[in-house]
Order: sequence, then structure tokens, then C-alpha cells
Amino acid sequence: MTDKEAAQLITGAAKGCPKECGQAYAPVNIALCKYWGKRDEMLNLPVTSSLSLSLPELGATTRISFREGHDQLFLDGVEQSRDSVSARRVSKYLDLFRPDRSTFFHVESESTVPIAAGLASSASGFAALALALNDLFQWNLGLRDLSILARLGSGSAARSIYTGFVLWHAGTREDGMDSFAEPVDGEWPGLCMGLIMVSRREKAVSSRIAMKRTVDTSALYRAWPAKVESDLKNLRQAIEKKDFDLLGRTAESNALAMHATMMDSQPPVLYWMPETVEEIRKIWRLRDNGLPVYFTMDAGPNIKMLFMEKDASLIREHFPDMEIALI
Amino acid sequence: MTDKEAAQLITGAAKGCPKECGQAYAPVNIALCKYWGKRDEMLNLPVTSSLSLSLPELGATTRISFREGHDQLFLDGVEQSRDSVSARRVSKYLDLFRPDRSTFFHVESESTVPIAAGLASSASGFAALALALNDLFQWNLGLRDLSILARLGSGSAARSIYTGFVLWHAGTREDGMDSFAEPVDGEWPGLCMGLIMVSRREKAVSSRIAMKRTVDTSALYRAWPAKVESDLKNLRQAIEKKDFDLLGRTAESNALAMHATMMDSQPPVLYWMPETVEEIRKIWRLRDNGLPVYFTMDAGPNIKMLFMEKDASLIREHFPDMEIALI
Repeated sequence: MTDKEAAQLITGAAKGCPKECGQAYAPVNIALCKYWGKRDEMLNLPVTSSLSLSLPELGATTRISFREGHDQLFLDGVEQSRDSVSARRVSKYLDLFRPDRSTFFHVESESTVPIAAGLASSASGFAALALALNDLFQWNLGLRDLSILARLGSGSAARSIYTGFVLWHAGTREDGMDSFAEPVDGEWPGLCMGLIMVSRREKAVSSRIAMKRTVDTSALYRAWPAKVESDLKNLRQAIEKKDFDLLGRTAESNALAMHATMMDSQPPVLYWMPETVEEIRKIWRLRDNGLPVYFTMDAGPNIKMLFMEKDASLIREHFPDMEIALI
Repeated sequence: MTDKEAAQLITGAAKGCPKECGQAYAPVNIALCKYWGKRDEMLNLPVTSSLSLSLPELGATTRISFREGHDQLFLDGVEQSRDSVSARRVSKYLDLFRPDRSTFFHVESESTVPIAAGLASSASGFAALALALNDLFQWNLGLRDLSILARLGSGSAARSIYTGFVLWHAGTREDGMDSFAEPVDGEWPGLCMGLIMVSRREKAVSSRIAMKRTVDTSALYRAWPAKVESDLKNLRQAIEKKDFDLLGRTAESNALAMHATMMDSQPPVLYWMPETVEEIRKIWRLRDNGLPVYFTMDAGPNIKMLFMEKDASLIREHFPDMEIALI
């Protein structure tokens, strides 16, 4: 990671008057059109734009303050060992913002996301951290700039700066300064997302590795950008016209296409479990019987259903273990 | 279907001296690089070339003779109703070869393929029928021309004219006269294929429809021809050098990519059952543990494993219900 970009944004930081403690909350977001593939590994610049929906009730609250000696990270009250993956990743990110080499940070983050729920916790985590840094240093940066800062920690964190529907622009600049997220107009009362946990086991292949392998080895991935372009157009139209079927159909197709590019990678990446196929078929059966329910999936075996609040009780009958998030 | 092409091949037919009865055998073939997508629906002209392996012991024996009134079709000793899908498809094919409008055919076909075994029976069926017609009419056509005639009945039948490895050239001509199969040099003693039946139920979507829907609606399918080109190169190299891992890896990847394009179709086509994922994962686990076994899949939920004879007993321990075909 380079700190050039961060420096561009926070040139005012040294002049700002840091508080004793910064604090912020950021929601989890679920992509309806996926971020799949980087054009720059260091800056987390995506190959394509993507569009997500934030789940307002689920997210991370992060507090950050200065300390000496070394960084300290608490996740849900538990101190993380300094050489843990999460602590090292956070420290590397914080390197971008240290006023000097002897300044370290104390970071505490609490998540309302059920542990290992297959919901991208790094997105809300890094978004909350970027917002908390802004609060700590009193940068008063705009959300667009904060979206860029969050992106440097985790690509999809760029979208967790906002609530509602969010579009993350791929951008074309090498320095990434045009690769930020912004809100998409469109309240959608009653829109629900339901989570079906197929597996709580850690993934055998991280999404970061799966994404890189897909870009490097999948022949079908060459057609992914055109697929995304068409899906984004349909999703924006669906949001504008409140066309739930178009929204669901497009989100489902986009998720299947993403998994399709993984299966085409070498060696193939298959996140699906037998139960994944079972749940997909169940959703399709319900839909064939007239119940408007669709799904999306991220880089894992779990399923996120999309449906309207009026159908929630019926859907819960069929999926008693489902966790519901109301948008 | 047009009979122009057939007429080109069998101009000598009227001059030939038909026997009372024609008879022929043709093997089933399993594609290692799939035929997926037509550039001409009427002539069964494929978008790409494909490469298969014939299973010499499994196939169809067909006898054909003249009769009056109407066509008659017996499959494995059972007369097929005249308005059944199979009888109508065969009669439509035979229309290409009737010396006059009042000549009909009696066709009997016996298959050594286990019923509904998920092995393309139409390929061996139409190949045997084309060969039997050649015998009946005493056309003495070459195998290349017979491959074209078989193709008019069912695309992949073009490949069932031969044993061993077979390459079906996509061709570029509109009349399809350069779209025929021919053998690929390379005996491979000990190469085995094992069939795992996941489901014997009839498919909800026929492979013909799935193929058309993929071509018409899958964005990822745009990248399929490039994938095939690279896979064909690897398969030919694997056959030449007897590189089993390259053969298996490429066949597996090609099958996964074909299923990937189906999943990306709208509405999606998913032939996989929960058990399909289970068996795929089992094969990968065995391979991770050092057993060289790969799989391919056609347009259905069943799995065809590729392995060497020396490993057959070990593989049978893990898949006791498997049926083995020795190449």
C-alpha cells in the first residue's frame, strides 16, 4: 500500500487538532452487483463498479485513541495478538495515518454482526475505522474522501460509508482518486434481506485469493465487465422504478455469474456446499410457486435472500433459521 | 432441417443397390472439451470445435429396413408410439433419405448403455442410424461424410462414428460441409471412465434448450470460444504426451466452465444436485491426497470420473456404485 493517496486527502491532518478519542459507526453492506477483481492490488482499485445495499442495523462501532509503544486492537472486547492477521492488517492501515513513527493507536471495535455470519465484517470494520480516524484527527473530510480512505483498508469498505443503496465507481485513474462510492437515490421501505447460514466454518480459500485467482486464470472472467455493465444498468432501473423482480433477478444472476467465474478458475474455487444447492433450489421452487424471493451470495457458501416485508412471515415458515435484516 | 447437405453426400444413393436390411454399431462418446452452443440450429453446426473419447463397449446397434405405410421405431425391443418425441425425431431425420414419399422405414435400435445412465444416447443412436443407412443403401460413404450425416441427427453424433479420441471440427462454411469429426491419434491403454449416477430423474431442462438459452442470454458465454481454444490445445498436448494430469485438469475445467455458462443464463440453468457438489468435493479430496482422479460432466447432474486402470480398485472403494468403462 502506498500512503501517497492518503496523504493527498489528509494534508490538513497535521494542522487539525486531534481529539483524545475518535469514534464512529459503519454498516455492513451486501453487494447486489459484486466487486470481483482488482485492477490494482495495492490501492484496492476494482476492475468494475459495484452496487450495494447497506444493512443499517448491522455494523461496527470503532473507537480510536493514541498510545505509545505499539498498536493495540480489541475486537468485541478481546485483545488481538500483535501478530494476528487482523492486528497486522489494521496496523498496516494505520501506518498511513501516523503523525510520526513513535505514535501508535489503541483501537476498539464492536460488531453487531453475528460472529462469522458470512457478512463482510472487514467492510464495516474499515469504514468505521476511517470514520473514527476522521473524528480523532478532526479532518472534517467529506464522505467521498472518506470512502477512498476506507477503500485503502478493504475494497468494499468504500461502500460502507453510506446507508441505503450505494454505487462504488471503479474509476480509471491510476492513483484511485476517482474510485469512491456514493449514495444512489431511492428509499425502498419494506425491502428485506434474510441470511441463511449454510456453514460457519472458515473458508478454505479467502475471498482475496479467490478474486485474484479468478482474474489471473478464468477465461470466462474476460466477459465479466460486460456482464457488470448490464447488471448495473438493470439495478439502477429497478431501484428507480421500485421493480422488485428486476432487482432480485439481476442480483441473483450477478451472484451466480461471480461464482461461475470462480468455478472456471484454475484450480477451481467452489464455495458451494451441498446445502447451498439445496437452498438455491428451495428458493427457486418457492418463486415458481409465486413467492417473490431471490438470493445473492458472496464469496462463501451462505445465502442472502431478498424479499419484501409483506412476505417475511411466509418466508420465515420455509426458512425458520433465517436471520432477517430490514433495509 | 434442410436436405440439401444430405443430398450432396448421397447423390450416388439412387444409383446404389439397396440391401434388404442395413445394420451398424456406434459407441457412446464423452466430450472432454464440450460441444456447447450452435451457430446453426437446423444443421447442428457448433460454435466451437470439441474433443471426445468414445467408450467402445457402450453404444447402440441399429438395424433398418424398408416398409410401407409409416415409419416404425423399436428402442430396446419396445415399439415407440408414432407421436413420441423419439419416433418423431427419427422420422424427421429419415425424411432426408427417403427415395420417394411412399417409402418408410422400420428401425430397431438396441443400446448397451444402462437406461437413463446420463450417457448421451442420442449421439450413439444417430451415429448408428447414419451408418446403418449407409449399409442399407450401399452408399459406401467415407467416415468423414458419415460423420456429417450423423451430425444432422444430433450434433455430438458426429463424433460417435469413431472409436478413441475424436475431434469434431466446428468448420466455418454455412452449409456445414467442413463440420465433421475425425480421429485424433493416440492410443491410451488403461485410461478409464467411471460413471457416478447422482440422479436418474429426467432433466427439467433439456440440453438442447439449455444450450440455446446459454448462447442467447449468458454474458460469460462470450468468452467460451477462447476457453475452448485453449482447452483443445491442452487436450491435444495431453493426448500426445500421455500427460494424464493435464488431460484430467483440462477436461474438468472445461466441464466446470460449461456449467458456469449455464448458471449465468437467464433464467439460470443449474443441473447440479446437492449430491453433485458432494461428489465433486470427494473427488477433490481424493486428489488432494494424491490419487489422480478428475471428472467431467455433461448437461445433467451426473459425474464421469477419469482415472487410470491401476487406480481403479482404490477408486471403487470410495465409489462402490460406480460403473466403469475402460477406454
